[in-house]
Amino acid sequence: MADTRGAQDPWLLTPGPLTTSMTVKQAMLHDWGSRDAGFIAINDRMRQRLVTMIGGEGVFTTVPMQGSGTFAVEAMIGTFIGANEKLLILINGAYGKRMARICEVSKRAFATLEWAEDMPVDANLVKLALARDPAITHVAVVHCETTSGVLNPVAEVARVVAEAGKRLLIDAMSAFGAIELDSRQVPFDAVAASSNKCIEGVPGLGFVLCRIEALEKTAGNAHALVLDLHDQWQVIEKTKQYRFTPPIHCIVAFDQALNEHEAEGGVAGRGGRYRNNCRILVEGMRSLGFETLLPDHLQAPIIVTFRMPVDANFKFQEFYDRLKDRNFVIYPGKLTVADSFRIGCIGRLGETEMKAFLAVVAEVMKEMKVASGAPARKAAE
Amino acid sequence: MADTRGAQDPWLLTPGPLTTSMTVKQAMLHDWGSRDAGFIAINDRMRQRLVTMIGGEGVFTTVPMQGSGTFAVEAMIGTFIGANEKLLILINGAYGKRMARICEVSKRAFATLEWAEDMPVDANLVKLALARDPAITHVAVVHCETTSGVLNPVAEVARVVAEAGKRLLIDAMSAFGAIELDSRQVPFDAVAASSNKCIEGVPGLGFVLCRIEALEKTAGNAHALVLDLHDQWQVIEKTKQYRFTPPIHCIVAFDQALNEHEAEGGVAGRGGRYRNNCRILVEGMRSLGFETLLPDHLQAPIIVTFRMPVDANFKFQEFYDRLKDRNFVIYPGKLTVADSFRIGCIGRLGETEMKAFLAVVAEVMKEMKVASGAPARKAAE
Ligand SMILES: Cc1ncc(COP(=O)(O)O)c(C=O)c1O
Ligand SMILES: Cc1ncc(COP(=O)(O)O)c(C=O)c1O
Repeated sequence: MADTRGAQDPWLLTPGPLTTSMTVKQAMLHDWGSRDAGFIAINDRMRQRLVTMIGGEGVFTTVPMQGSGTFAVEAMIGTFIGANEKLLILINGAYGKRMARICEVSKRAFATLEWAEDMPVDANLVKLALARDPAITHVAVVHCETTSGVLNPVAEVARVVAEAGKRLLIDAMSAFGAIELDSRQVPFDAVAASSNKCIEGVPGLGFVLCRIEALEKTAGNAHALVLDLHDQWQVIEKTKQYRFTPPIHCIVAFDQALNEHEAEGGVAGRGGRYRNNCRILVEGMRSLGFETLLPDHLQAPIIVTFRMPVDANFKFQEFYDRLKDRNFVIYPGKLTVADSFRIGCIGRLGETEMKAFLAVVAEVMKEMKVASGAPARKAAE
Repeated sequence: MADTRGAQDPWLLTPGPLTTSMTVKQAMLHDWGSRDAGFIAINDRMRQRLVTMIGGEGVFTTVPMQGSGTFAVEAMIGTFIGANEKLLILINGAYGKRMARICEVSKRAFATLEWAEDMPVDANLVKLALARDPAITHVAVVHCETTSGVLNPVAEVARVVAEAGKRLLIDAMSAFGAIELDSRQVPFDAVAASSNKCIEGVPGLGFVLCRIEALEKTAGNAHALVLDLHDQWQVIEKTKQYRFTPPIHCIVAFDQALNEHEAEGGVAGRGGRYRNNCRILVEGMRSLGFETLLPDHLQAPIIVTFRMPVDANFKFQEFYDRLKDRNFVIYPGKLTVADSFRIGCIGRLGETEMKAFLAVVAEVMKEMKVASGAPARKAAE
C-alpha cells in the first residue's frame, strides 16, 4: 500500500493500536463543539454504518462507549445481564478470562467453559452445558481470540444458544469489520468492538451493537453510571448528544476510517486484504523455518502466533529490538500453552509491507546467526 | 492569540470540548505502539507533571482513566468509597448531582447537602453535617461548578473535613490547571479532572490524582473492572503498560498541551489569561446590557452565566445561530434557578478573540433589533 502513515512511524504488526492512514489522522486536525450539527451528523452516520455492517437495519442500534474495547465489553455484560440472570462464558484465551473477571467485579452470576488456548470453543459442549444448568440465560463468546489468533465458530455457538432459548453476547473486538458477522444469519443480542482494530481508526471509542428489543429490557441493570448502555442509548436517541463528553477527534477520525473501509469494499474487501497479509506472512515465516501455533483452518487472518525458535542464538528481545530499529513492531506472546510471539496482519498495511517485513526478518536472523526459526518441537523430531 | 486552530473551525466559547492549538492537534498525526518506549516516556512525564501541578511530588500519583471526565469521577468514587464507608456530597449544580447519581448506581452509601445553583457551598454547614452524622467518612465537592460557573471554597471545605478527621474527594474538572490547588495547603485524598478542559488537550482521557497512602488501601473496592483506579495504578507502575488500550493519540496531544501550559507559566499563567478573558467578556456584555447570574466575587474565570434578556426580539436559538454563523459557539444554560445561557472563557483564545466576540454580539443584537441585553429582573425595576 502507499505509505500514508506519519513520516517515519514504525509499521505496527500488532493487534492494536495499529497503523492507520494519514487521512484518518488528519481528520483530527479540527475542533468541534459537541452540539455541532456537523459532528452530530457524523455521529449518526457512524452509528448507522456499523449497524449496516451486520445487516441489522431497524433491528439493531449502535451504542458508542467512551474508553477502550474493554469498556464496551464490560458495559455489554453489565447492561445485558440482570440481577436474576446468569452468563456462561466460553474461554479459550485472555479475553474470555477477562469477561469472567468482569463478572466477578460487577457481581454477575456466571459459569465458565474452558478450552486450551490453541483450540476453538466447541458448540457441542456449550449445548451440553446449557442443558445441565437451566439458570444460564446468556452465553458470551470471543469471535477471534486475539491471545492466539484462533477463530471461534460463532455461528455454530449462536445456533445451539438460540436452540436452547438463550441469548448470545459476542466480543468481536479484533474481528469486527474484517470477518463477516451477519445478524440475519447468526442470532445474537449484542456484539462489542472498538474504533481501532479492523476498521483502522485511532483508539478511544468502544461500541456495542445491540438488538433493540433486548436493549429495551435492560433499564436499571448496569453496575456503573458511565457503563450503562441503556441510558447512553436513550440520551443519544432523544437529544443527539452524549451524556458525557465524547472523544470527538477520535469519532471524526473513525468516520474517515469508515469511509476508507467502505472504499475498500467493506468487510469482504478489508477481510480480503488481511487474508492476503496473513497468507504472505505465514508462508514467508514458514520458509524461514518458523512454525505457527495453529493449523491453518483454525487461524483467523488477524494475528498469527509463532512458536519460539529453539536456536540458542535466538533471543526474542534482541529480535524484537532489531525489527523495531528497522521500523517494524511485533508483539510478545500472551500464551500459557507455548513459548511464543505474535505478528499482526491488521492495520493500514498490505502485500508490500508484509514482504518488506519478511526480508527484514531474514536479515535480522542472519545478523543474529540464527540458522532457522524452527521451534523446540520441530527440532526434536 | 495567533489563530492556530484548524482552518475555519469555530471558536468554542464552551466548557469543553474547547478550542485547542494546532500544535496540540498535530501531535496526533503519528501512530504509536502501546509498548513503544517513546510513548511510555510521554505517559510517565504526563503523570509526573500533573502531580507537580498540585505540589504532590512523592505523595500523590496520577492514575489515568480512559473515557471522559465523568469516567474519572465515577472511578474516584467507586475506588475510594469502600463497603462500610459513606460519602457526603456537596451539591450546587449538575455535577454535584451527578456524583449522587453515581453513588446510587454503584450502591455507595451517601448523603447530600444542597445549595441553590447560584450559591457557593458553605463550609460551616459541612462542619455541622459531619458532626451530626459520624457514619460519614468522605466528602465530595466540585471545585468550579460548571453549571453556573460558581467557584466553591475548596480550601475552607478541606479544612473542616480534615478537622473532622474525614477525607476529601474533589471534582476539579473545569478548574484544574487554571485555578490553583496546592495539596500541601489543601488536604484531600483525590482530585479528578480531564484532558480537555484548562490544560487544553483533546477529549478522551480523564485522570485522578490520588494520595498514594490512601490509594493503597482501596484494593477490591471498585464496582467495575475498567473503573478500578487501584488496579490501573498497580499495573501501570509495574509494567508501564495500560491494562486496556490507551487513547494514545489523545495522550500524546495532552503531552503537547502540557508543554504549552508550562510555556504559558503553568497554572498562574493559564489562569491569568482566563481571568483576563473573563473580565473582558463580563465588562463587554454588561456594557451591552446583559447581566451575569453571579456577583463577581463568586465567579470562577471558567464559564459565565448570563440571564436571558427580556426584549421580545431576543430569541436564544436565533442569537446562537447568528453567532455560530460568525464562527463563535456559545453554550445553552443548564440552570434551574434562572433562564440563562453560558459563555466559556477557556480554551486556546485570548483578548483578541474575546473582543472580536463582543463586536459580533453587538452586531447580532442590532440585526435582531434587540435594544439591550437586560434581563427580566432588571427590566422590571
Ligand atoms: C478479543 C478482544 N477483546 C477485548 C480486547 C480489549 O480491547 P481494549 O484493549 O481496547 O480494551 C481486545 C484487545 O486486543 C481483544 O482483542
Ligand atoms: C465540574 C465538572 N465535572 C464533571 C464534568 C464531566 O466531564 P465529561 O463531560 O468529560 O465527562 C464536567 C464537564 O463539563 C464538569 O464541568
